[in-house]
Amino acid sequence: MPHIPLPADLPGIRGAMAFRPETARPLNALVEILLQGPHTLTRGERELIATYVSSRNCTTYCHSIHGAIAAAHLDGDEALVQQVKTDFLQADISPKLKALLVIAGKVQQDGKLVTSADVEAARREGATDLEIHDTVLLAAAFCMYNRYVDGLGTAQPADPAFYRERGKRVAREGYVTVSEEYLASHSR
Amino acid sequence: MPHIPLPADLPGIRGAMAFRPETARPLNALVEILLQGPHTLTRGERELIATYVSSRNCTTYCHSIHGAIAAAHLDGDEALVQQVKTDFLQADISPKLKALLVIAGKVQQDGKLVTSADVEAARREGATDLEIHDTVLLAAAFCMYNRYVDGLGTAQPADPAFYRERGKRVAREGYVTVSEEYLASHSR
Repeated sequence: MPHIPLPADLPGIRGAMAFRPETARPLNALVEILLQGPHTLTRGERELIATYVSSRNCTTYCHSIHGAIAAAHLDGDEALVQQVKTDFLQADISPKLKALLVIAGKVQQDGKLVTSADVEAARREGATDLEIHDTVLLAAAFCMYNRYVDGLGTAQPADPAFYRERGKRVAREGYVTVSEEYLASHSR
Repeated sequence: MPHIPLPADLPGIRGAMAFRPETARPLNALVEILLQGPHTLTRGERELIATYVSSRNCTTYCHSIHGAIAAAHLDGDEALVQQVKTDFLQADISPKLKALLVIAGKVQQDGKLVTSADVEAARREGATDLEIHDTVLLAAAFCMYNRYVDGLGTAQPADPAFYRERGKRVAREGYVTVSEEYLASHSR
């Protein structure tokens, strides 16, 4: 049971956002820029960073939906998403993305753990300043989204099938477009 | 030294935001709603929550500037701000705010630690659903801002005097207004 009354038909962050549309708008705008906007990292790569951080925070709703969105961007490769969650160093992803995931994993614990050596290692694999900035902000932002979803005790279905179709839709349409629908229908 | 090139005249989150004005806008919009917008919690109370979470994350820039803003809203009572950072249960604040700080402290660690009993305790002291929601989101959001500031290795002056005047100005003018200035001057 959620700690405050949230719409029963909206699990995870959607219920929380419908409760407070004012804060939902910047929350969606931020994730739209970071995950869907034009970028030198692919959408699949950025969703893998979000999925990895959410998985480390053990937030079922977030690592399941972003894992499903990542898979949708990666030709449906759910095995790759699972591999990134469990042991990304062995995953079939670029050395640059691995170096960025090391940084993301440290930010998930504490931003102060990121060292110059971590950043240099990412640069050696071709990471740009913007990619390093966005990796840090993305990891930090998911520490927010994860705590928001968990801290309100939102509903978080465990079945991966629950997330698959919605993942495809968000991958296609983006966060702001998809959210406008439930924000409008639940406005207080 | 920051991990990426940030404007030397802008410490803490200001340098990071100037580096990427696109993401700075939703980041400022969110904090404006949560900390400056109309609310049943005073601005001083909300800044104390932000300060407390930042203090627990040991992010000098954030707990110093929000501590200064909190003090500006609380008739300059810096001793009270310090007391909230070190032992809020003994501070001269309302029982409701203490109950909300318990929730904020758990969210800072992991949202899953918040229990129904914590929420009931806050309700018994008069906390509303919106106040509980905003406490959770505020604590979650500062886990983002803190990691963003720390993860990029931004400059974080240690001298409280550095933050005092700016704290007064932000308290008076708000986040969005004050940020437009340095975002405009540093746009790439």
